[in-house]
Amino acid sequence: MLTPLCGRLGIDWPIVQAPMNWATDARLVAAVSNAGGLGVLGPNAGDEPASADPKQMGERLRRQVRAIRAACTRPFAVNVPIGRGGNRGFSDRSIEVLIEEGVRIAIIVTGSPEVYTARLKQAGVFVIHAIASVKHAKKAESCGVDAVVAEGFDAGGHSGFDEIPTASLVPQVAEACAIPVIAAGGIVDGRGLVASLGYGAQAVYMGTRFMATIECPIHANVKQAIVAAIDSGSTSWGRSTEIARTLKNRFTEEYRRRELSGATREELHKFIADYAKMPGGRRVAGLRGGDLEDGEVYLGTGLGLVRDIITCAEVIRRTMNEAHETLDRVRSILREDARATAMERIQA
Amino acid sequence: MLTPLCGRLGIDWPIVQAPMNWATDARLVAAVSNAGGLGVLGPNAGDEPASADPKQMGERLRRQVRAIRAACTRPFAVNVPIGRGGNRGFSDRSIEVLIEEGVRIAIIVTGSPEVYTARLKQAGVFVIHAIASVKHAKKAESCGVDAVVAEGFDAGGHSGFDEIPTASLVPQVAEACAIPVIAAGGIVDGRGLVASLGYGAQAVYMGTRFMATIECPIHANVKQAIVAAIDSGSTSWGRSTEIARTLKNRFTEEYRRRELSGATREELHKFIADYAKMPGGRRVAGLRGGDLEDGEVYLGTGLGLVRDIITCAEVIRRTMNEAHETLDRVRSILREDARATAMERIQA
Repeated sequence: MLTPLCGRLGIDWPIVQAPMNWATDARLVAAVSNAGGLGVLGPNAGDEPASADPKQMGERLRRQVRAIRAACTRPFAVNVPIGRGGNRGFSDRSIEVLIEEGVRIAIIVTGSPEVYTARLKQAGVFVIHAIASVKHAKKAESCGVDAVVAEGFDAGGHSGFDEIPTASLVPQVAEACAIPVIAAGGIVDGRGLVASLGYGAQAVYMGTRFMATIECPIHANVKQAIVAAIDSGSTSWGRSTEIARTLKNRFTEEYRRRELSGATREELHKFIADYAKMPGGRRVAGLRGGDLEDGEVYLGTGLGLVRDIITCAEVIRRTMNEAHETLDRVRSILREDARATAMERIQA
Repeated sequence: MLTPLCGRLGIDWPIVQAPMNWATDARLVAAVSNAGGLGVLGPNAGDEPASADPKQMGERLRRQVRAIRAACTRPFAVNVPIGRGGNRGFSDRSIEVLIEEGVRIAIIVTGSPEVYTARLKQAGVFVIHAIASVKHAKKAESCGVDAVVAEGFDAGGHSGFDEIPTASLVPQVAEACAIPVIAAGGIVDGRGLVASLGYGAQAVYMGTRFMATIECPIHANVKQAIVAAIDSGSTSWGRSTEIARTLKNRFTEEYRRRELSGATREELHKFIADYAKMPGGRRVAGLRGGDLEDGEVYLGTGLGLVRDIITCAEVIRRTMNEAHETLDRVRSILREDARATAMERIQA
């Protein structure tokens, strides 16, 4: 195993597919895990419509887990968002189902590590908690989680209000914590893997790169939008409401225009809520419906570096190959012979 | 020379001290250049008060350049901000003075590369242009600049409105341009250097790390604030006005509060202008006066990783040492023997 975390997770490569909610299903998860990475099932994975009934959602999750098992004997994880609000019916039920189904790895996001860590640990589940600051990383560690995802401002989806970029967050979390760190945000290739390992991470989280795969269940429009995107194709919006990074489109530009021209927080919340009333909701409309203008399409700042739609196995193969090439390139610059004379010269 | 850019600049190490304006003077520049990096003089360098008269500013620059020469025979650069506005008296005069004084390297920021590149090239000056997007990098290259600084959202000071983090911007600029790229934004140590070289950069720009040095002419309060800062210590503010990253303080929080609670663009501009009327102006008050609450203290997201005040030579020595250690650590993970079996397994 390349890193101790790979050993504990039972995976070949230090590559975790970020839990992208609607953008995941059993097929995607199995494809990543079968290639030796860690596939992660999102809370709204699969084609079945969502339900307000936690019991129905639990059975939906159970069917997805069983579908992964049918396609894959390797380790995989289930993602459970706790949410910042009070109603925990859905997450409570998800936790029970994943324990009942014998899932060995859980990734907990958007909530306090105090809520489920003890319950999951008691059931023998490896608990990974996603954080976006050193303070929250330390809290997660003190609650007994097994590893943290350090998710920078570069990441797609909802992240921290502190807006700390991945390259500054990861080394600080790695220094502050004894538990393993998974680097997240803007990482799409072997260059990002080398940088992350250098920062002290033991694996990377990749979302956007796995969206542009043959197996990913999102709409073809979204995959094409990622391939076509330039460096400034994503935007982080919602500083006074919910802070999320998505594809820059009519919805985000209209939000931004309102925010910067004097709309109150209440007006912005209403604007978001009205948009959510579009058929299927603006998230499903974006990711599954392919509405690139009014949908909410979560993706990270690395989108401009993704230029083709390939298999999940090819993502992993290419990332590992490119990591070795990157390492060779850096080694050719930081030569050992230069190192010896270097220190003498600087000290002189 | 470690990279072709080091060769062309005549420096030993791929480390450029970012031009931090008021935070620079001849002593700092000479200290960096004498240690084998590239020292860069900012436009308001030194202790002399600024003047509205371009001629006086030109003579002030000339005195600083001569003071560098008295302390250092190694290459150094002069930074000239063009500004987005119309009045170019100051930058015109700076360009002429740097040519008259035989300065060999110019770093041009906040303006179009069309403005001075031909004039500088004609005088044999090596022209580096700072950009924050692939589009602007390509434009700079087409204008004939010799190298670009790719400055991500992580950077202190004023940067691009596209808010592209360093880790996503640098590899894209390196792929898009044939000219050398200097990685900028959030880089404070050898881990950042390894990541940047891996992204395809030929050198790094470091600002915040050089602020916490013995030679830097900023107020001791600012150096202590950097050492004491945590990961979320900087903030990017001014989305509707001027976008800058500074120390998070009373000024930035008050700006943010107003922006997110319905202040118009005009009101925000007035708020900034009123603040600028504080004695010495809020920038000098922050960096030179040490006013950490109401001053404007430019610094990048890497501040939480800076934990001591050392000499510039020690910054360079430590960065190079840590880069080698980082590389060794990544090599121990990405083992050659693992590489061989890896590809077989993924393809199987």
